[in-house]
Amino acid sequence: MPKKRIYHSKKKIGQIPGSLIYTGERSKEKLFIETFDYTKEFCVEKELQTIEESFEYKNTDSVTWINLNGLNHVDQIEALGNHYDIHPLVLEDVVNISQRPKIDDHEDYLFIVLKMLYYDDNQHIVSEQVSFILGKNYVLSFQESEGDVFDAVRDRLRHAKGRVRTLKSDYLLYVLIDAIVDHYFSVIEILGDKIEDFETAIFAGDVDGEISQKIQDLKREILKVRRAIFPLREVISRIEKNESPLINKKTITYYRDIYDHLIHVSENIDIYREMIWSLMDMYMTSISNKMNEVMKVLTIMASIFIPLTFIAGIYGMNFEYIPELQYKYAYFILWGVMIVLFIGMLFYFKRKKWL
Amino acid sequence: MPKKRIYHSKKKIGQIPGSLIYTGERSKEKLFIETFDYTKEFCVEKELQTIEESFEYKNTDSVTWINLNGLNHVDQIEALGNHYDIHPLVLEDVVNISQRPKIDDHEDYLFIVLKMLYYDDNQHIVSEQVSFILGKNYVLSFQESEGDVFDAVRDRLRHAKGRVRTLKSDYLLYVLIDAIVDHYFSVIEILGDKIEDFETAIFAGDVDGEISQKIQDLKREILKVRRAIFPLREVISRIEKNESPLINKKTITYYRDIYDHLIHVSENIDIYREMIWSLMDMYMTSISNKMNEVMKVLTIMASIFIPLTFIAGIYGMNFEYIPELQYKYAYFILWGVMIVLFIGMLFYFKRKKWL
Amino acid sequence: MPKKRIYHSKKKIGQIPGSLIYTGERSKEKLFIETFDYTKEFCVEKELQTIEESFEYKNTDSVTWINLNGLNHVDQIEALGNHYDIHPLVLEDVVNISQRPKIDDHEDYLFIVLKMLYYDDNQHIVSEQVSFILGKNYVLSFQESEGDVFDAVRDRLRHAKGRVRTLKSDYLLYVLIDAIVDHYFSVIEILGDKIEDFETAIFAGDVDGEISQKIQDLKREILKVRRAIFPLREVISRIEKNESPLINKKTITYYRDIYDHLIHVSENIDIYREMIWSLMDMYMTSISNKMNEVMKVLTIMASIFIPLTFIAGIYGMNFEYIPELQYKYAYFILWGVMIVLFIGMLFYFKRKKWL
Amino acid sequence: MPKKRIYHSKKKIGQIPGSLIYTGERSKEKLFIETFDYTKEFCVEKELQTIEESFEYKNTDSVTWINLNGLNHVDQIEALGNHYDIHPLVLEDVVNISQRPKIDDHEDYLFIVLKMLYYDDNQHIVSEQVSFILGKNYVLSFQESEGDVFDAVRDRLRHAKGRVRTLKSDYLLYVLIDAIVDHYFSVIEILGDKIEDFETAIFAGDVDGEISQKIQDLKREILKVRRAIFPLREVISRIEKNESPLINKKTITYYRDIYDHLIHVSENIDIYREMIWSLMDMYMTSISNKMNEVMKVLTIMASIFIPLTFIAGIYGMNFEYIPELQYKYAYFILWGVMIVLFIGMLFYFKRKKWL
Amino acid sequence: MPKKRIYHSKKKIGQIPGSLIYTGERSKEKLFIETFDYTKEFCVEKELQTIEESFEYKNTDSVTWINLNGLNHVDQIEALGNHYDIHPLVLEDVVNISQRPKIDDHEDYLFIVLKMLYYDDNQHIVSEQVSFILGKNYVLSFQESEGDVFDAVRDRLRHAKGRVRTLKSDYLLYVLIDAIVDHYFSVIEILGDKIEDFETAIFAGDVDGEISQKIQDLKREILKVRRAIFPLREVISRIEKNESPLINKKTITYYRDIYDHLIHVSENIDIYREMIWSLMDMYMTSISNKMNEVMKVLTIMASIFIPLTFIAGIYGMNFEYIPELQYKYAYFILWGVMIVLFIGMLFYFKRKKWL
Repeated sequence: MPKKRIYHSKKKIGQIPGSLIYTGERSKEKLFIETFDYTKEFCVEKELQTIEESFEYKNTDSVTWINLNGLNHVDQIEALGNHYDIHPLVLEDVVNISQRPKIDDHEDYLFIVLKMLYYDDNQHIVSEQVSFILGKNYVLSFQESEGDVFDAVRDRLRHAKGRVRTLKSDYLLYVLIDAIVDHYFSVIEILGDKIEDFETAIFAGDVDGEISQKIQDLKREILKVRRAIFPLREVISRIEKNESPLINKKTITYYRDIYDHLIHVSENIDIYREMIWSLMDMYMTSISNKMNEVMKVLTIMASIFIPLTFIAGIYGMNFEYIPELQYKYAYFILWGVMIVLFIGMLFYFKRKKWL
Repeated sequence: MPKKRIYHSKKKIGQIPGSLIYTGERSKEKLFIETFDYTKEFCVEKELQTIEESFEYKNTDSVTWINLNGLNHVDQIEALGNHYDIHPLVLEDVVNISQRPKIDDHEDYLFIVLKMLYYDDNQHIVSEQVSFILGKNYVLSFQESEGDVFDAVRDRLRHAKGRVRTLKSDYLLYVLIDAIVDHYFSVIEILGDKIEDFETAIFAGDVDGEISQKIQDLKREILKVRRAIFPLREVISRIEKNESPLINKKTITYYRDIYDHLIHVSENIDIYREMIWSLMDMYMTSISNKMNEVMKVLTIMASIFIPLTFIAGIYGMNFEYIPELQYKYAYFILWGVMIVLFIGMLFYFKRKKWL
Repeated sequence: MPKKRIYHSKKKIGQIPGSLIYTGERSKEKLFIETFDYTKEFCVEKELQTIEESFEYKNTDSVTWINLNGLNHVDQIEALGNHYDIHPLVLEDVVNISQRPKIDDHEDYLFIVLKMLYYDDNQHIVSEQVSFILGKNYVLSFQESEGDVFDAVRDRLRHAKGRVRTLKSDYLLYVLIDAIVDHYFSVIEILGDKIEDFETAIFAGDVDGEISQKIQDLKREILKVRRAIFPLREVISRIEKNESPLINKKTITYYRDIYDHLIHVSENIDIYREMIWSLMDMYMTSISNKMNEVMKVLTIMASIFIPLTFIAGIYGMNFEYIPELQYKYAYFILWGVMIVLFIGMLFYFKRKKWL
Repeated sequence: MPKKRIYHSKKKIGQIPGSLIYTGERSKEKLFIETFDYTKEFCVEKELQTIEESFEYKNTDSVTWINLNGLNHVDQIEALGNHYDIHPLVLEDVVNISQRPKIDDHEDYLFIVLKMLYYDDNQHIVSEQVSFILGKNYVLSFQESEGDVFDAVRDRLRHAKGRVRTLKSDYLLYVLIDAIVDHYFSVIEILGDKIEDFETAIFAGDVDGEISQKIQDLKREILKVRRAIFPLREVISRIEKNESPLINKKTITYYRDIYDHLIHVSENIDIYREMIWSLMDMYMTSISNKMNEVMKVLTIMASIFIPLTFIAGIYGMNFEYIPELQYKYAYFILWGVMIVLFIGMLFYFKRKKWL
Repeated sequence: MPKKRIYHSKKKIGQIPGSLIYTGERSKEKLFIETFDYTKEFCVEKELQTIEESFEYKNTDSVTWINLNGLNHVDQIEALGNHYDIHPLVLEDVVNISQRPKIDDHEDYLFIVLKMLYYDDNQHIVSEQVSFILGKNYVLSFQESEGDVFDAVRDRLRHAKGRVRTLKSDYLLYVLIDAIVDHYFSVIEILGDKIEDFETAIFAGDVDGEISQKIQDLKREILKVRRAIFPLREVISRIEKNESPLINKKTITYYRDIYDHLIHVSENIDIYREMIWSLMDMYMTSISNKMNEVMKVLTIMASIFIPLTFIAGIYGMNFEYIPELQYKYAYFILWGVMIVLFIGMLFYFKRKKWL
């Protein structure tokens, strides 16, 4: 199994600060841009070829969501950034995928980075960086590659479900972040299942030598999830307490709801962490128990047959005068003695609960 | 043994925020509504068919306690909520049973969520969510299913025992929370008993391979109890320090009493946690001790009989000229030598304290 | 050995708050009341039959110490409490022996609960609750049963040793608490001795299977002592910082001295705790070392004699043509070979340091 | 392998405070001094023989970077310090290489100490102390020996890449620190590789007895890196929050960037630390697994052949009357019995999954 | 080896507060008093018989250092204390050697207690209490016994080296504390050496059964050092931040230097602590590795020779008709078979890397 490194190679060492360099591994991603422009009354959804097509929405009163997939297309990102007057350092952070979840308040807009978590087809956890820029009446979102957890949001926008169409860009941002955080629940559900599968396997003794490797892998997964989720609590908590005019008072209640979810997820992660540490203990005891069992078999076999073999050896000696050898029934008597010894031994081990 | 997952399946992923969806597993619970309406002078107890029957109590001066069991009946909860002007997000939290204990101050009323803990018939711990809404002269309580720890409270209301009938709704809330917290004591008492039973079993060597699984289960129970109780301390502490006009100054002393109880319970939980971690250590040493014992039996048997068998083997050789074979008493002398060896070995092992 | 539970059965579940119920196990204690009434000039010591006899001291200028033993006599405590105008909740705490050390400031008096620790005759640690009520010119003290650590204090009062007779009730309280805290030193001294005895026993290999049980018991003792002492630091620190007019500025220096003692004791407890955790490690290594030794004996015996037995077996075969069997000195040559092998093996194990 | 002590011998014990004594081990380093003097328009780079040649730059408006390698040349450092009016205690800290990363604000200049980390040719981590003194228009830097991570910076200065030439000395300091912090990433990358190599080796069972020594060495490396990096976070955070007029508001954003990098590196270090602790656990289980395997081979061999040998021993006895011996096919029947026993045993061990 | 208790027997239990009782074990120490009285111009050094001889220095302008060794001479200490108007509680602390490092500000003087650490001839760490009283122009120091780390200070005083003669008593105190703290470095250097010696010994497998005892002793030493040094950081930090007029602003920089040293030492101690915990792990793995090796030898010997012995046993049977026995070369063929088996086994174990 090829191992994924938990760090990203720092391609930027020695680079001039402020230069836009995509640091991820998906350098051949196709560019995918979509826009939703809506008010309570209408909602226009488009798929764009180049980012320039989205520039018309900037000065409208409607709320605009521009979603760009493919961080390798740095020129497009730069163009969009320049159009919306985004600071170069922010754009640098957008394409540098080794960011921790964080929030930067740039007066005209908020910059939020977080991690989307999901399991890929090989059941490896994938952490994809998603950046949001929240402006007065727009939300820009940047993803590494196509495919995300926002389909329910798109659906609500299209069909005006819930309140999303009636509220402003701050509520749209909430809905998007909420979709990501909701998805964390399915991730930790899978983590929980994995832990229980290990538990069941260890208790059933159904373990091969690879289990400790798998447990180590699971530990690493949990560390990865922790790193994505724990700093996000701080981010959301800062939105809550933020006096930014970009977030309406009413919407803050919803962000508090996300915060509650994150606390809930975090608690579960810490529980899993504790449980996985004790899994290792369990595994050790299961190994020791097995060895105990092996030793018992050996001890029982040896303790029973070595003395019997000794007795047989005695009467295999060639001394000229061994009186027992002449008795006619000596052989059968000896068998009797041996059987008694054998049964006595069995009783002894039975009483010791080794059998 | 079927394992209970420690998370609840998040049925709400992708749902519109604010929608009332019961997230628990008891979706077929019968609706059970009871009301207590009392002043110092009288106390009227009723069992209702529909929530509408309780609406008459809203504008009276008497204190009203409406207790609703069956969170799956979201329509009834919504009706009650609307009648008392409760925010939809609060109602959403009432029916979403994966809440952490928390308190929300909504000016006109306080919303408090906590967990009722008890052991079911299979000795599995059950954590049932109970929500309280405390208003000026009413307390609304919501439980997942019928059956609770409030019987003593009902009795006191009916027979005007203690001060509950003479005081306001804030004291009623105290009495109800106190009943739940009092019950925590019996839960941790059972936890304590379980830990001691394990200890006794491990020390007596009376353990089967399942003990590590049981210890893991116990760890999980303790984590569950921790999760229910620890955030509650924060909740009660916020009531204490709260300037809410709904809580009288005099009643705060009583809440401080609950707080003391919770600290007491928390300390015990942490002690149990530490003890259960060291239980695992004990178990490991007991396994090692057992293996030691097994090894000693093997070593003693082998060390005694292998050399003797060797000697017997010597005189079983067919060399034409082995002088000893001709001596008449050689066989008996050899027996003597062997018995001396045997006893010598026993002494050796005795001195090594292996016997 | 009968095990003591670390929790007290919560007899109060479902009881009305404010009711005086003794929760301890010593329900048959004899009532014992003594009073010391003193000024610089005189000191009157009395032993009373009923609490009413003490009521005369209330309105005098002299300092009065009323010491009541036997918390099961709730009526006497209630009478005393009413006479001195003590709040019912305070009296409830006096007789509820599962209190954590705490201080409550009730303006007219301070209420302080702490734990007296000592070892009983079976070398089990006993934690007895002592409550103090400090008023303007009186100290009330409540103990579960007769017998305490205050004899030196009584002596000083009687013979006007030190400054106790020249100062007020706040200094008396200091002297009493100091006596209790001083006694903690002998408790941790015994704990220290026990730990060292275990160390010595483990290092000497002089351990039986019960040692891990005893270590677990010791852990529990340390947890018990911790629970008694750690919250007391907070209590004393609050007296120090307290602006209560009941404590003179000058006396505060003395309380700071107690605080220093408590820090000292706490540090020792934490050190013991760390040491006892590593004791378990030591025990594990000692078990492993023993097993190693057992295995070596087995391996040496088996490795030496199994090959030799094989050789003997060879010449015990009945093939018609085994040339060696005919040589006259073959038997002696074989003995030589075997002895060489034997010595070679010994050398080999010697070089491996297994002998 | 020669072990490096993690402390430096404190040559200074008993010395008069304020005396300049180099405490490192590279006491024969050649002196190397270089200067960069630049404005937006020009950049003059020089290599000096003595520090006096650099004195001309003090009172110019251009930014001057004086980089001195060879802390053993205390006289040169003292001369430079006196010329720039640096406090003797600061100079003492410059040459005392056992400093923790720290920042001291001396109004006219900031003094910053940090550690440059790199792997030497033997793959041992080297921690070299670098001190910076930031003045109004100069940066003094002091290194233990020639060779550093500043080549990219020099290049940017020479060719006016990026913004370094257009900004002041505070930006130059940022660029220099950034170069050092960037290099931390390659250090932790190597650490991560080492950990994974150990994991792979342990999982592959490809471990020799030295692995635990190597793990211990790795732990020490991580501790060393931790000690260099963790206090630096505090240093940078203090620059950020600093109101020092030497740091422009605009440059602070860049320092925040360094801070983010340091948090990132710190998190990785803590993850590595956790992983290396669990590596030890893995190693233990792998040892136990191996022992289990060894025991199984022994048990299978012994359990199969000891009973068979016993049977052979039976018919090697010399009793005069053993009926079986006379049957013609007895020998072959016995072989059959033995083979059946042998196969039965194999099945038994197969079913137990020992084979 | 006699074990030193880590607590001191509390001789003071039940004593009247404020009484001067020496609590240490060196009750037969000789009294040794020396005085240094100096200004920039002169320095008078004397050795006194009784403390009264030092009283002449009190009202001079010169700085006086009175150093008293032998805390058992409580009368001399009391006399000195009374002469300099020191509070009785301070004197009590001077002779009670179980103090934690602390500082008390008594307006006219500062009282500082700390611990001098050194290794005695048996390589046991010794912690000796040193108390300082810093007045306007005097420093009083109290040590348990003669012999200290102040020789370099005395030398500097005598020969007016450094700045000590030109500055006031606060600088003298700094120099004295600095001498003690400097000595901590050699203590932790020895600790570091010990840990490395253990590591080397464990890795070389050169361990006897006593190593775990020695590691436990080392843990205790580290705890002792921790207890002496960690609270001292707080003490020095309070001097730094202290607004006491007894400490000049200029001198505070020097105290900050001590603080830096203490942080440095503390970090090393924590590293040692972590390393010693993992030493125990290493030791466990080394034991397990050894057992593995023992088991392999046993398994190889048994697996090879038990089957061979079985074969020999077969042809030692006395059946009348065993065809092989009659073939002339059967014996040699059997030898061939056995040798093939033997070599096959060796190959098998070789391939399993057990050889």
